Amino acid sequence: MTAPSWPKLDAIAFGGDYTPEQWSRETWREDVALMREAGVNLVSIGIFAWALIETSEGVFDFTWLDEVVELLHENGISVDMGTPTASPPAWFFANHPDARVLTREGVTMGFGARGMASHSSPAYRAAAVRIATELARRYGNHPAVVLWHVHNEYGVPVGEDYSPNAVRAWRLWLQERYGSLDALNAAWGTAFWGQHYGDWEHVGAPAAAPSVVNPAQRLDFARFTDHQLRQCYIAERDAIRAHSDRPITTNFMANQHNGCDLWAWAREVDIVSDDHYLWAADEEGEIGLAIAADLTRSVGGGAPWILMEHSTSAVNWQPRNVAKRPGEMARNSLSHLGRGADGILFFQWRASRSGAEKFHSAMLPHAGTTSRVWREVVDLGDKLATLNEVRGSRVQADVAILWDFESFWAQDLEWRPSEDVDHGERIRAFYERLWRDGITADFALPGHDLSGYKLVLAPAQYMLRTADADNLNRYVAQGGTLVVSFFSAVVDENDAVHAGGFAAPLEPALGLRVEEHLPLREGATCTVDFAGRPVTADVWQEDLVLSGADVRGVYVDGPAAGEPAITRNRHGAGTGWYISTRPDAEGLAAVMAEVYADAGITPAGLPAGVEVVRRTSADADFLVAINHSAVTVSLSVSGVDLLTQTATDGMLELAGGDVAVIRSPHTADRSAQS
Amino acid sequence: MTAPSWPKLDAIAFGGDYTPEQWSRETWREDVALMREAGVNLVSIGIFAWALIETSEGVFDFTWLDEVVELLHENGISVDMGTPTASPPAWFFANHPDARVLTREGVTMGFGARGMASHSSPAYRAAAVRIATELARRYGNHPAVVLWHVHNEYGVPVGEDYSPNAVRAWRLWLQERYGSLDALNAAWGTAFWGQHYGDWEHVGAPAAAPSVVNPAQRLDFARFTDHQLRQCYIAERDAIRAHSDRPITTNFMANQHNGCDLWAWAREVDIVSDDHYLWAADEEGEIGLAIAADLTRSVGGGAPWILMEHSTSAVNWQPRNVAKRPGEMARNSLSHLGRGADGILFFQWRASRSGAEKFHSAMLPHAGTTSRVWREVVDLGDKLATLNEVRGSRVQADVAILWDFESFWAQDLEWRPSEDVDHGERIRAFYERLWRDGITADFALPGHDLSGYKLVLAPAQYMLRTADADNLNRYVAQGGTLVVSFFSAVVDENDAVHAGGFAAPLEPALGLRVEEHLPLREGATCTVDFAGRPVTADVWQEDLVLSGADVRGVYVDGPAAGEPAITRNRHGAGTGWYISTRPDAEGLAAVMAEVYADAGITPAGLPAGVEVVRRTSADADFLVAINHSAVTVSLSVSGVDLLTQTATDGMLELAGGDVAVIRSPHTADRSAQS
Amino acid sequence: MTAPSWPKLDAIAFGGDYTPEQWSRETWREDVALMREAGVNLVSIGIFAWALIETSEGVFDFTWLDEVVELLHENGISVDMGTPTASPPAWFFANHPDARVLTREGVTMGFGARGMASHSSPAYRAAAVRIATELARRYGNHPAVVLWHVHNEYGVPVGEDYSPNAVRAWRLWLQERYGSLDALNAAWGTAFWGQHYGDWEHVGAPAAAPSVVNPAQRLDFARFTDHQLRQCYIAERDAIRAHSDRPITTNFMANQHNGCDLWAWAREVDIVSDDHYLWAADEEGEIGLAIAADLTRSVGGGAPWILMEHSTSAVNWQPRNVAKRPGEMARNSLSHLGRGADGILFFQWRASRSGAEKFHSAMLPHAGTTSRVWREVVDLGDKLATLNEVRGSRVQADVAILWDFESFWAQDLEWRPSEDVDHGERIRAFYERLWRDGITADFALPGHDLSGYKLVLAPAQYMLRTADADNLNRYVAQGGTLVVSFFSAVVDENDAVHAGGFAAPLEPALGLRVEEHLPLREGATCTVDFAGRPVTADVWQEDLVLSGADVRGVYVDGPAAGEPAITRNRHGAGTGWYISTRPDAEGLAAVMAEVYADAGITPAGLPAGVEVVRRTSADADFLVAINHSAVTVSLSVSGVDLLTQTATDGMLELAGGDVAVIRSPHTADRSAQS
Repeated sequence: MTAPSWPKLDAIAFGGDYTPEQWSRETWREDVALMREAGVNLVSIGIFAWALIETSEGVFDFTWLDEVVELLHENGISVDMGTPTASPPAWFFANHPDARVLTREGVTMGFGARGMASHSSPAYRAAAVRIATELARRYGNHPAVVLWHVHNEYGVPVGEDYSPNAVRAWRLWLQERYGSLDALNAAWGTAFWGQHYGDWEHVGAPAAAPSVVNPAQRLDFARFTDHQLRQCYIAERDAIRAHSDRPITTNFMANQHNGCDLWAWAREVDIVSDDHYLWAADEEGEIGLAIAADLTRSVGGGAPWILMEHSTSAVNWQPRNVAKRPGEMARNSLSHLGRGADGILFFQWRASRSGAEKFHSAMLPHAGTTSRVWREVVDLGDKLATLNEVRGSRVQADVAILWDFESFWAQDLEWRPSEDVDHGERIRAFYERLWRDGITADFALPGHDLSGYKLVLAPAQYMLRTADADNLNRYVAQGGTLVVSFFSAVVDENDAVHAGGFAAPLEPALGLRVEEHLPLREGATCTVDFAGRPVTADVWQEDLVLSGADVRGVYVDGPAAGEPAITRNRHGAGTGWYISTRPDAEGLAAVMAEVYADAGITPAGLPAGVEVVRRTSADADFLVAINHSAVTVSLSVSGVDLLTQTATDGMLELAGGDVAVIRSPHTADRSAQS
Repeated sequence: MTAPSWPKLDAIAFGGDYTPEQWSRETWREDVALMREAGVNLVSIGIFAWALIETSEGVFDFTWLDEVVELLHENGISVDMGTPTASPPAWFFANHPDARVLTREGVTMGFGARGMASHSSPAYRAAAVRIATELARRYGNHPAVVLWHVHNEYGVPVGEDYSPNAVRAWRLWLQERYGSLDALNAAWGTAFWGQHYGDWEHVGAPAAAPSVVNPAQRLDFARFTDHQLRQCYIAERDAIRAHSDRPITTNFMANQHNGCDLWAWAREVDIVSDDHYLWAADEEGEIGLAIAADLTRSVGGGAPWILMEHSTSAVNWQPRNVAKRPGEMARNSLSHLGRGADGILFFQWRASRSGAEKFHSAMLPHAGTTSRVWREVVDLGDKLATLNEVRGSRVQADVAILWDFESFWAQDLEWRPSEDVDHGERIRAFYERLWRDGITADFALPGHDLSGYKLVLAPAQYMLRTADADNLNRYVAQGGTLVVSFFSAVVDENDAVHAGGFAAPLEPALGLRVEEHLPLREGATCTVDFAGRPVTADVWQEDLVLSGADVRGVYVDGPAAGEPAITRNRHGAGTGWYISTRPDAEGLAAVMAEVYADAGITPAGLPAGVEVVRRTSADADFLVAINHSAVTVSLSVSGVDLLTQTATDGMLELAGGDVAVIRSPHTADRSAQS
Repeated sequence: MTAPSWPKLDAIAFGGDYTPEQWSRETWREDVALMREAGVNLVSIGIFAWALIETSEGVFDFTWLDEVVELLHENGISVDMGTPTASPPAWFFANHPDARVLTREGVTMGFGARGMASHSSPAYRAAAVRIATELARRYGNHPAVVLWHVHNEYGVPVGEDYSPNAVRAWRLWLQERYGSLDALNAAWGTAFWGQHYGDWEHVGAPAAAPSVVNPAQRLDFARFTDHQLRQCYIAERDAIRAHSDRPITTNFMANQHNGCDLWAWAREVDIVSDDHYLWAADEEGEIGLAIAADLTRSVGGGAPWILMEHSTSAVNWQPRNVAKRPGEMARNSLSHLGRGADGILFFQWRASRSGAEKFHSAMLPHAGTTSRVWREVVDLGDKLATLNEVRGSRVQADVAILWDFESFWAQDLEWRPSEDVDHGERIRAFYERLWRDGITADFALPGHDLSGYKLVLAPAQYMLRTADADNLNRYVAQGGTLVVSFFSAVVDENDAVHAGGFAAPLEPALGLRVEEHLPLREGATCTVDFAGRPVTADVWQEDLVLSGADVRGVYVDGPAAGEPAITRNRHGAGTGWYISTRPDAEGLAAVMAEVYADAGITPAGLPAGVEVVRRTSADADFLVAINHSAVTVSLSVSGVDLLTQTATDGMLELAGGDVAVIRSPHTADRSAQS
């Protein structure tokens, strides 16, 4: 069976997680009536219902679920059927105590939360496949069921597992990866600290030890963990596929949990879906949202995707759970849509009275239908209903930012030159510059075909395979513009320093090597003279050895005072920039202005706080404009605002906090502003 | 046998913990001579002496203890006989390794400190009852023994226990509480995250898990832990009672350890006793002291109580152990006395040379009898000897502050809207206002008969049973004034959000519901326009939906800008105030000034730093006046200062740091100042 | 066999750790060529090579090591042969799982780092002795091998171990120490908290417990841990000695790891050697370096020692690993040499490509021979080659600072009066004063013969045995000047408060006792009137009771306002100063100026940032002058600069960052400046 690439729905998907098992049948009837009022057309069910479906091992009771599916079906609401394998029942752990997770420090994880099972436990795999099979047999061809939702947020809250089951699986994974112990010893550099292995049975998981554990071993364990999680997904997926032709997904957590290599995961799903929550402490959470949405779209190769979860207002698991303000939920939703989402769903339909997440907002909050949140949910349903024609259109970008999960895993290990270096922060800083400049970006792996992009940014590429470095060098030689930030191209795939020294693999593109890292003391800043303009920077300097690059910025002070800080190198038909320190936002803007010129990119010149992103179909452009500011702004746009069905001729007035989706004739020009 | 409600003593109890087992017999003789010099009339002995009394399992040696008791008796010093069950001997753990405590993270607690036993261990219970019985048999009718001191500070340092013994007891406790698994599943909301239980044997303790564990389960585990501790106490108490008619107590830690529900504990003791230590970082530690003393009195229903432990100077277990300054020990002691204590005891008589507490001050410090501390101890003994007639008098209060241990347990769980919300801080803030205004308060449970109070404050009542809410509504309807602070009445006894939303159960009294919580970002402040006056606040705002309340304060800025912040509602004959944010001290003073007016309460108008509290007997009032400031103040008081036996007619001059106890004719007026 | 006290080398030792096992044979040949270029004459090998030498239990393969030794020998490079026992192979832990370390919290330490073995494991001891024996048999008389390097940095990363093997050894150690349980119970003060032991089998290690564990037990466990480590060393040493007459050492970590009592260790080695790394956050790391070097020299009784490891530039294990700047490595090296080192070695020769320390700098960095670091290494080799005649000369000091590891262990335990009191900080503060004044110091134990010193400082001597106090009193009586800082002489060797109270044992020398400790609140400061000059202080005050001392400083404010703060006492022919608070640097300078006058010591009057230290041989003085500042300074010196072979007559111009080693005729005057 092959699955279609989109659930059978005749509109943009709208709805959320639905947990009827927490409520009475009376409430169910109220629920579906209110869903219809709000325009809900898709709900995800069963995600945490294992204990209520398989009431003891091998004993299934589908009565209540049948009833729920029929009720939804009768009301025209489609079902995203979950497999409940993120939360095995109490009986499962009683029957299979060895399926419990062991932490790195040797603590066996108890019951009472969720996600407690070892993904390497054969008993868990068998049980997960069994219930997925039973669900697929029963609902795989039900007309209400249009999508499968396997498990929930793989890797959260449990990723790494050090249980005996995990250690056994780890050895098999290593045997497959390396073939021989000699290869493993070489890759891990076990000659260091006398860790040479002479017997496969001696190879253990990198559990807590008196000092720092072999980083190559830990990097492989991160790969193994990702692999085990994915194998669990694949096992369930294949079990479902045997009985159902509906598309299958599992909800990612792009830009929130980096333990899964989403590039690899995206290859295994029929539709990419994502959960996204604002980080409340960030007063510009919309930028983090945009990163997540662009990453989700990118791992899916640009195809439309589903926002499987976000929140109508506050979440419950952050230190201070700031509520969304009026209009914010709609702005968030439209930003996801503008960046490629054809489905806008929430966690969750109705707020739970009990349990760990009772303070998480919902479409229907504790305060009920008289509440602001409910009114805005209904309004959002109305808005989305006007956007049917946007479905299937695509976002196009001139810029790619490298995002390599394996490099993150490597860089996050211990004993790096400075704990102030943070790859996530660097990606955000460069992305934020693009966002403010109205420039849409894709994310990419360093080994991808990058020839379609005018500009490639590598804000944090600590680990860079030689072949991938060659790809980047080639990209520049063929005319591309590449920007590389400090502490990049340091190690190979085994966390071993590249022969020739730091950044050596990128010497062709950058025209330099890095002789020595020069971390700054805590809180210290320095100044770079960037083409006559003082730029403030911090955290890091480097001793650069130039082999062709031009000096664009010079350290005025700090350990490398008088030495090159920012360089530009002509290589073939292209240009390679290197920024060996952490400039502040203003300084980065100055550098990027020159980079844009090299790449032939023009910033959109948007008013502050305004986000514009465009989707393009065969027939039209859809420009999604979001005003995050409090003041009315004017945008030079022509077309029809689909939300209001009013025509705009040349100038759109967008009130503070408002959104517009302007359909315009198809343009060849892909710059953000018409 | 029934016990009297006070130890047979002919004066205010004065003394402390005495550990002769740490010293030679020569030192014992010096001790009793010095005790007589200081006026000591009661010492607590045997509290940590198990290993020296029961030298191996079932083998008792009372020789030395007999000798100590006789020596004290000969010198006219009464004995508070401790059961040493807070610190089982090394042989006990060797014989019963399963009696060791297991932490939530799975660490088995080792020997070498104190309090290492599982309170659910049958072996521990049996051993504790055995030694309590043997002690009661031997000393239960000894003329020197006037009081029993069971165990020590239940719940500290060990409360929660996750050992197999605890898990077995937990299941039995749950079976008794819920009767059926259906009831348990409903109460715990196990439909959330798929935690439904189908077998009692699958129900475990809420040990460490990969994510947040079911909060209702954890709340019940806190109740169970409190119950297990109390059952241990009751078992020992009953064993003693079988052989002795002396009153029995165990020392509480009011306002320092919240793991024991002191309302329930107080019902099980003949006399309430309390340990209190200043928090050194608090430059106004006397306010925390007053809270502890008022809480101790309140849980005991207003009866006189014993200050079982406090310190003559510094303690040893805080980050910085600030020593008391001259006169401070006497001020502290008299504040306890003024708030109802008829006994003033210390930890401990003579400073230990060895062990974990050698830097804890004592009545007889390392520096010996030439020291300031010793001189002040002797002086305090002299002072207390003048106050015999105060004994048995009672404190009366017009204000009650709600203090519900179960609500604290619930609120302290994870994943609340903001980690900046702290129930203890709110209680302190409201109490501190009363303290500065010279207004004495009781503490109460929300279900108590509150009709005797003019004013009831609910600074933090996150968990509020519906029946208790009804009680508060009734209190207001019948003329009371109620003040409720934000994040109150949120959940029921199972940590489930009240139907109808936040604060719904108090809608009659308050005339509003809370639609949404609006936590502020870290460090953010906002302004409330309170009747024309700007009040600074922080941490929290709320979206209120008024159903009758008048708006007294409006948010000027922040997420609820323009919306109500502080409200006042007429309900029946009374008034319900609601404060939906955290005003600063000045702002709270402004609000409370209006509240006082509603309640018919007049602040005492005391000079800054002066504490006044009154005890009333059948014949007289005893006004305890304490000048915590450094300057002499004048107080409008008439009567005789018992400490100096001088008459005061209309105006008392109280020197900086000084204390007075003024006996005056009985007055009907209970306001603080004559 | 008796060993010589210095390796057979005809120059100052220069080189570093060498790990050929991480590289190809081609690289080996490059290595030795470059070593010759740099003037390397000694390398340490085999330190982490156990797994590659003993490939499975009892199976040895020396092929590669033979080859390395021959290659080095052929190139005239001597060998410091390591025993690889700091990192047992994977097969060892597979064969002997009980040899793994158990932490205080019960976590079994895993493989994959280094130092994972229990030093109390019989299997580990046997295996360590076996491989040491085999190495000694094979290389003990090899002409290239001039030194043995047992293990690596004992105590790091593993010191304390709570495994069953450790507990068994601990009981035996206690039985030997105490002879009887009665003696143990008395020493540990087990009457406190009911910890009396009636059976040796009940005595456990001081593992995690619900409250603070008996401090005397923990202090003894620190002694036991030190003893077990040392016994491991001795076992290996004796095994080597049976087959080799070369000197044997093990590398200490003076002033970086305090878990080993280096006074005791130094008695067991033929040559003292030390590893030292700058603390990057300290902008004057050269002062910490000087402390380490002086301590290393002092534990070795003043004999020349070897700097076994330091770094050419950054390390990798600190939060921010600041690189050394040009010239800094040479300044560091010469400071060690000036303070007694006759060998300057590095970790490590060639930077590792893989493993946990790949970002640690090396003599040959990742950037290779074109790098600044390599050029400076070659230059340092050249410099050292000019200093042959300095070898064997000795440093002499007029000042001793007490440094008692056992006192540190005691003071570091829990529940002390203030967590702001830090013995290391106090030692640094006093030492720093001496350093800036150009006054060289030794370190000493309080029981040492101190009669040769004009001045003895006790910046932190919390634990002071009565006999040692007598020694200090005698030192003063016989004319010495003693300075004691607060919180000293508090407890005896069992962490029991001295009879008579705090500081009582030093009453003769100081003319006072300490009645009470008065810790200040966090961040609080106070003022001392020191002979009319206001001195700012913080952290601590004390109530002093004078019995002869003169008051030199009085508290202006704080808890002891108006009371003595700093005192001076004439005792016999000498003077005892007591400083009962923590003055700031300026205040300490004022006090020390008076102390110097008492002691007859004259500060050197050096320019800021200039370090001068002198070594003296039978024939000449060698004055090592180091300019840590950026500006040229003038020093009044005559002699020949050995580094440049130029004569200086009266005035040396030393450029910013530069060093000089001036040979001058032998002078009787030992003051720092000629």
